[in-house]
Amino acid sequence: MTETHSASVLSHPLIESDRVEGTAVYDANGRQIGTIKRLVIEKVSGNIAYAVTSFSTFLGTGSETHAIPWNYLHYDLKLQGYHTNITEDQLRNAPEFSRRDDHLLSGRDWELLSEYYAGPL
Amino acid sequence: MTETHSASVLSHPLIESDRVEGTAVYDANGRQIGTIKRLVIEKVSGNIAYAVTSFSTFLGTGSETHAIPWNYLHYDLKLQGYHTNITEDQLRNAPEFSRRDDHLLSGRDWELLSEYYAGPL
Repeated sequence: MTETHSASVLSHPLIESDRVEGTAVYDANGRQIGTIKRLVIEKVSGNIAYAVTSFSTFLGTGSETHAIPWNYLHYDLKLQGYHTNITEDQLRNAPEFSRRDDHLLSGRDWELLSEYYAGPL
Repeated sequence: MTETHSASVLSHPLIESDRVEGTAVYDANGRQIGTIKRLVIEKVSGNIAYAVTSFSTFLGTGSETHAIPWNYLHYDLKLQGYHTNITEDQLRNAPEFSRRDDHLLSGRDWELLSEYYAGPL
């Protein structure tokens, strides 16, 4: 039913949310640094708030989970994954509450996290 | 925003995308008419495009799957589900391609579907 040539796959504009889980994340140099584990949505606005992302080799200290605001992840059709300009330093200094994978951020923490990534390095 | 009564769970602003799956959909009269099966995301913009939704009792002819543009689903904190003003007639007359659950809509079909629901009844 679907076309078999690779361009149709590359250019397909839509993706199921459960397929975003497991999608690779690349740094500014195109190196894979992590994988998206889960998306979190603002119920009322219906916008995606952040992606719970597992960073593997980036930090060199074993895998770490971080909540990454969705607007810092950009889909790259060539890489078939998301690239981000977030740096190792930003992740290292990210608030403790954004590194956990066992609960949703509160509204307040989500605000603080947005401010953290929007702020000066 | 300033209220602090027991509704802290009700008012939690965020939800995991995989928990949206299975969330109830209510019609304009507050009657449950369906359940969200899956979210579909525009890769590049990062916005949710539509929800693949299973309608059960609404149509009275067994369950039917429809792609519903995300902006026609509004989270209702009291109902803890999504309500929609989409009518039975709109679903009955929806394009055939929007009733299938075995593939993503093409970019063109997604445009057509948006136009269909935005158009006059």
